[in-house]
Amino acid sequence: MSTLLLRRMQPTRALVHGRARPPQNVRTYASASPVSRFNWEDPLGSRNLLTEEELAISETAERYCQERLLPRVLQAYRDEHYDPKILQEMGDLGLLGATIRGYGCAGVSAVAGALITRAVERVDSGYRSSMSVQSSLAMGAIHDFGSKELKEKYLPEMAKGNITGAFGLTEPNHGSDPGSMETVAREHPQKKGYYLLKGSKTWITNSPIADVLVVWAKLQETGKIRGFLVDRKQCPAGTLETPAIKNKTGLRASITGMIHLEDCPVSKENMFPDVEGLKGPFTCLNSARYGIALGVMGALEDCIARARAYALERRQFKGNPLAKYQLIQKKLADAATDAAYGTLAAIQVGRLKDEGKATPEMISMVKRQNCDKALHNARVLQEIFGGNAVSDEYMIGRHVANLYVTQTYEGQSDIHSLILGRAITGIQAFV
Amino acid sequence: MSTLLLRRMQPTRALVHGRARPPQNVRTYASASPVSRFNWEDPLGSRNLLTEEELAISETAERYCQERLLPRVLQAYRDEHYDPKILQEMGDLGLLGATIRGYGCAGVSAVAGALITRAVERVDSGYRSSMSVQSSLAMGAIHDFGSKELKEKYLPEMAKGNITGAFGLTEPNHGSDPGSMETVAREHPQKKGYYLLKGSKTWITNSPIADVLVVWAKLQETGKIRGFLVDRKQCPAGTLETPAIKNKTGLRASITGMIHLEDCPVSKENMFPDVEGLKGPFTCLNSARYGIALGVMGALEDCIARARAYALERRQFKGNPLAKYQLIQKKLADAATDAAYGTLAAIQVGRLKDEGKATPEMISMVKRQNCDKALHNARVLQEIFGGNAVSDEYMIGRHVANLYVTQTYEGQSDIHSLILGRAITGIQAFV
Amino acid sequence: MSTLLLRRMQPTRALVHGRARPPQNVRTYASASPVSRFNWEDPLGSRNLLTEEELAISETAERYCQERLLPRVLQAYRDEHYDPKILQEMGDLGLLGATIRGYGCAGVSAVAGALITRAVERVDSGYRSSMSVQSSLAMGAIHDFGSKELKEKYLPEMAKGNITGAFGLTEPNHGSDPGSMETVAREHPQKKGYYLLKGSKTWITNSPIADVLVVWAKLQETGKIRGFLVDRKQCPAGTLETPAIKNKTGLRASITGMIHLEDCPVSKENMFPDVEGLKGPFTCLNSARYGIALGVMGALEDCIARARAYALERRQFKGNPLAKYQLIQKKLADAATDAAYGTLAAIQVGRLKDEGKATPEMISMVKRQNCDKALHNARVLQEIFGGNAVSDEYMIGRHVANLYVTQTYEGQSDIHSLILGRAITGIQAFV
Amino acid sequence: MSTLLLRRMQPTRALVHGRARPPQNVRTYASASPVSRFNWEDPLGSRNLLTEEELAISETAERYCQERLLPRVLQAYRDEHYDPKILQEMGDLGLLGATIRGYGCAGVSAVAGALITRAVERVDSGYRSSMSVQSSLAMGAIHDFGSKELKEKYLPEMAKGNITGAFGLTEPNHGSDPGSMETVAREHPQKKGYYLLKGSKTWITNSPIADVLVVWAKLQETGKIRGFLVDRKQCPAGTLETPAIKNKTGLRASITGMIHLEDCPVSKENMFPDVEGLKGPFTCLNSARYGIALGVMGALEDCIARARAYALERRQFKGNPLAKYQLIQKKLADAATDAAYGTLAAIQVGRLKDEGKATPEMISMVKRQNCDKALHNARVLQEIFGGNAVSDEYMIGRHVANLYVTQTYEGQSDIHSLILGRAITGIQAFV
Repeated sequence: MSTLLLRRMQPTRALVHGRARPPQNVRTYASASPVSRFNWEDPLGSRNLLTEEELAISETAERYCQERLLPRVLQAYRDEHYDPKILQEMGDLGLLGATIRGYGCAGVSAVAGALITRAVERVDSGYRSSMSVQSSLAMGAIHDFGSKELKEKYLPEMAKGNITGAFGLTEPNHGSDPGSMETVAREHPQKKGYYLLKGSKTWITNSPIADVLVVWAKLQETGKIRGFLVDRKQCPAGTLETPAIKNKTGLRASITGMIHLEDCPVSKENMFPDVEGLKGPFTCLNSARYGIALGVMGALEDCIARARAYALERRQFKGNPLAKYQLIQKKLADAATDAAYGTLAAIQVGRLKDEGKATPEMISMVKRQNCDKALHNARVLQEIFGGNAVSDEYMIGRHVANLYVTQTYEGQSDIHSLILGRAITGIQAFV
Repeated sequence: MSTLLLRRMQPTRALVHGRARPPQNVRTYASASPVSRFNWEDPLGSRNLLTEEELAISETAERYCQERLLPRVLQAYRDEHYDPKILQEMGDLGLLGATIRGYGCAGVSAVAGALITRAVERVDSGYRSSMSVQSSLAMGAIHDFGSKELKEKYLPEMAKGNITGAFGLTEPNHGSDPGSMETVAREHPQKKGYYLLKGSKTWITNSPIADVLVVWAKLQETGKIRGFLVDRKQCPAGTLETPAIKNKTGLRASITGMIHLEDCPVSKENMFPDVEGLKGPFTCLNSARYGIALGVMGALEDCIARARAYALERRQFKGNPLAKYQLIQKKLADAATDAAYGTLAAIQVGRLKDEGKATPEMISMVKRQNCDKALHNARVLQEIFGGNAVSDEYMIGRHVANLYVTQTYEGQSDIHSLILGRAITGIQAFV
Repeated sequence: MSTLLLRRMQPTRALVHGRARPPQNVRTYASASPVSRFNWEDPLGSRNLLTEEELAISETAERYCQERLLPRVLQAYRDEHYDPKILQEMGDLGLLGATIRGYGCAGVSAVAGALITRAVERVDSGYRSSMSVQSSLAMGAIHDFGSKELKEKYLPEMAKGNITGAFGLTEPNHGSDPGSMETVAREHPQKKGYYLLKGSKTWITNSPIADVLVVWAKLQETGKIRGFLVDRKQCPAGTLETPAIKNKTGLRASITGMIHLEDCPVSKENMFPDVEGLKGPFTCLNSARYGIALGVMGALEDCIARARAYALERRQFKGNPLAKYQLIQKKLADAATDAAYGTLAAIQVGRLKDEGKATPEMISMVKRQNCDKALHNARVLQEIFGGNAVSDEYMIGRHVANLYVTQTYEGQSDIHSLILGRAITGIQAFV
Repeated sequence: MSTLLLRRMQPTRALVHGRARPPQNVRTYASASPVSRFNWEDPLGSRNLLTEEELAISETAERYCQERLLPRVLQAYRDEHYDPKILQEMGDLGLLGATIRGYGCAGVSAVAGALITRAVERVDSGYRSSMSVQSSLAMGAIHDFGSKELKEKYLPEMAKGNITGAFGLTEPNHGSDPGSMETVAREHPQKKGYYLLKGSKTWITNSPIADVLVVWAKLQETGKIRGFLVDRKQCPAGTLETPAIKNKTGLRASITGMIHLEDCPVSKENMFPDVEGLKGPFTCLNSARYGIALGVMGALEDCIARARAYALERRQFKGNPLAKYQLIQKKLADAATDAAYGTLAAIQVGRLKDEGKATPEMISMVKRQNCDKALHNARVLQEIFGGNAVSDEYMIGRHVANLYVTQTYEGQSDIHSLILGRAITGIQAFV
């Protein structure tokens, strides 16, 4: 029994509460009804594939997200404001680094971990991004590649949300092609046992508020990519800057920034000992991508629920609800189908992941397809709202804007197509 | 252990052999390799979800289809010829009515039954249609609704393929709307214990060669739809005609026809005793539709395998194989993804079906989506062949033509959209 | 020779200047090069269809928009701020109500008028919306339906941009279905020759800053829809309120609001004398929609130009520019094709309009198709920018957000489908 | 006034007669009604752009095609039979090589020439292919590149349809990439003034029945591509073989074959004197492609007319015609829009062509887009017919199968994308 369950929240009256407009509960999350009739919220009965523990974790996460995150997100998105307390709240519930065993983490299945991301992304992809970076990228990197000392020092506090992490791989000139990175680490000319990091990273979630930053850089002596844990507290003034990128067109409820390293000294103990090349960052990305694959299904499901509620309430032409029109029904049917299919595929890959059978290409497939389909259907569902979608209070415009970003980060959709194409044909077509 | 396994064929050298052009084996079917690396033939490791028995049944069916059906299909399709021996061959292997328990049937799981349809449809949707009608519609109707006597009389011989069945529901003026059917059954004015059937059915697979025809008609006295087993041997001359429909644009390897009933006498014993209304035919259609959902994935997989092989072999522009081009790789990646997703969804619904949890709407969802995606991707993959696809020897044109039909029969795609729309919104939009 | 030409601006050095990022001129607008080679900015040589005067008007408008509007739009969009001086600037150049003859208006062709909207929308759909409302809806309504006195009183000052207009048709509960409007006009119980208007309008561009508002209301005595010119100066306190709608997800550079009329007295002279029913507002909408059809092509062309420039500059994988990749080239080819086709179609309808041959259904067709295609391609082109599109400085995210609104206002896309479907089949399918 | 008009056929009662099923006239072609109301057969009033002469030519061609070709096509397609008399009938009406001036040809505008192809393709793309090869490829090559003697010898008889031509460019291993052709011409070792041609061409329309074949081959001495007129009568036995390719999946009403040249002697007089390299064949292809661009709009318009007629006649669910349903109306609206847009674009390019301003990229654009859209919409419209589309008597299945071929020949769609991409970006992405 996971420790997570011990901290399970008590049920409350109103699990889901939308905005003033629309006021209705658009969806239920905690219902434990068995699979026995068609349920538009889970059309192909994916609940049937989950364990009791996974269902309980999912419910805990959904309740927190609907009760605590949903009321904040509209204003946060408007203001491009991220409340750092959110990670602590998640930490209190055991939601951070949940698939890690030990170090104060819950040690749940890959599927359970992804159910948490789905719950968060049902509210907002930005909130999910912040959590993914903390859990899969920062904690994941430390757990998979850090020394025993690093793990013991950082993971427990990160699991509580007391230390915020970031992950620096992407550079201004190298997005889809991280192998060409320019950030370098060279031996400190004076201070033995230290490296000096120099370079810039961009589009780094959490970077402006991060306490620790996993930074990938080329070791000058070998030309090989290595990972470093940069602890902000240990950086002399002027060697680390993490300015925020403002005026974003999506993911505005999370905070994104750059990392500028100007001969920032990092001790050798903070270099990951045994991993070299792109294997390191790609392992972490793989876990994060897996979480995204199920996560975006949460955003899509929220769009479905909101569009359905709107279509049932809004009346045009002789008082018929929009839901009566064939063109509307087809949009809902298409979206529900893609949500159901994407959910099953993500669960399947999670099961294989726990069995050690999931390959990176499988994760490319579900990350790509689920992001593409979430974005596509969110846009189509947005049409149901007509002009009203222009009001951010209907929520769907925010999902649409966010989902564009999910499609493009952690492997842009076309790049994943070429990864799959290579796996299918044995021939690479990147250049 | 199913009887089917006892009749399992011995392995042979060449499980798959394409046409002279292209000569290469485009795919493997019998490989028992475990899920551990990315396999373009099963990208999301669906094999992992199958039992040993299901894998064995699938292999038996695949081997038969590749060795015995594939060599015949090209000429059969050209000539619009269906070889009635095929059903007997399938019967010998235990492939007919395989999910039925007893009566000489294999009694396998719903998923196993669908793996058989997938194997057949990998060769040709027409061959699969003929088998589906025999298994799910004709045998299914007799098994689910027939009296004990009817079952014992017909099912064992139908399982062997010695008696061929058809299923008459669709009428010339009533396709998507069977409730308006015009075929009637009235009490025989002279011969007690008999009904007279009058009306026409159309687009009836197998009808010209069928020995027994399940016919749905409105009982004159009640106006309710009832099912009748029409045994051709018992029909007086001139009361039953089953002309073939020729010059079809798809499914040419199966035989399709009409059923004209002109006061055809049928004994009361041949009326299904306990089922009234559309529930009867819809139950049978539900099983058939389920089989189609996994079946069309076989056709799509064959298109992928053939397109991939062609792309690897065909060279244009400085000797590069087509497989090197991004636009080609994307087509393959998209198709492989849809095949993988559709396979998982169909397996999931099959599992729920065996647990009694699959609703008709779930089957609408997987039937609609998988047919739509099989057709769409087959068309896109066809583009890889360029002008060569115009030669029927490349096989893909036939799949494209066939898959159009699968999308439109057993519930046209838009109709299933509205079934799903009704299930999601609670409001019907058919009229 | 139109008066517009007399006020033509002098050429300047830099006609187009993008943001700091990307710095390059992404497109040329003033080039008078003849059609003789393939020009990606006008792939099917639409310039060949334009008169000298139209080309000159287009150049004047483009220059103003690129020099004066483009530098303001980024901040305006961020702040949801609309600078009322813009209409005066446009008025100075003769761009307002340009197709109206007399009353100080330029009296140019329908195509010339649409070339102006295209120039404005190349910068921002919000700026274009504000201008369309002033020109086609407010001035258009007064011109087409107002008394001689109203025209002489208002049109010259509106043409100069000294008086700002709005157009109130849509109501909170009646978007696609204006015939069900609830706003009413009843005879003033005390003040003879006056009506009292009561009701609410929403999603009204310009309403918070409008001096005059064309309001459509049902006349209580007849139940017929009539048009009223509400002059804010003449409204007693508390009878007219026009609150802004904030936190919009698109068109943030224009100002949008509601109109609340609480027994607002309007004199009979301000009621349009000779038009009754939906013919009035639909005539105005028709002109506005026509302008949108060519307008959105401007936004799409800007997306193409920016995506092309980015693809040529951005390098990934061995230093190749993105423009070298097939998947990128296809996106550009598709978008350029749709822009070229949409431009030709809009010009054709404009020509027919001037000949009195354009029907509302033709305008539905080009409005629907061009908005759909502009939005679709803008989204696809956005993918070329990868994660960088999240920065608003790349401009494309703003176009994507704006174009969603153009697809949904002035007749949502599906509604236009049904208008076309009715015209094609003779059967209406709205209910 | 073109000679074509002199041979104009007399009006008849029934210009259009479909099959027994459906019996109704689905469309009018000869109507001279002015553009003044919405006409679903010409939604954007393209007639307004045509001259009187062009309208008359179009009517002549449409009448011939509907009266003489339509009744033959169903059986011809079933049997893969092409009646060689068809070219003579077309010749009698002046429809062959119609844009050529002199040599007994009509000398009409490029648009008029394309209106003829549209009329023919409204019946069948195969019939149009045969005519395009005769007119644009064989006659076009002789006219553009042949010596005065060749022109005078062949063109008048080809214009009458007494001599049938073919055009040999594509080879078995070189479809999209003709520059790699393997067919060679070397000086005859014995017979002075002669070349020996050796090599194979495939997918050559008309080849089995052609009297003269334009063959492109690499001159051994220079390695440059040159054009040869191969006159079958002059070929010694065994040096020229033109076997038919049977069992085609599309274009079955035209005849397609290979050309095998086995040291076939051709006199130097039959080599085109002044053209070298791919410029020669590409010039001819350009004209043919232009004809296809408007031609396929004819096939699409026929699909629209037939789908509309079917939707109005077929009733399902409480007696409503299919045309009443939103999902049906949207399909019709989309198709009508694409047909209208494609028609305008093709007319525009034709006008530029006559002015010497049309570039190959423009023709790539309209060929690609119109073929893609014709195919896509034909497939969507086919869905309206449900299962009935499987009967070839409803005609639409044939159009769907044909249009696939038009998309892939004369430049496969993706290849044209890359031609456009290169024109837009200045960078080629073929390899």
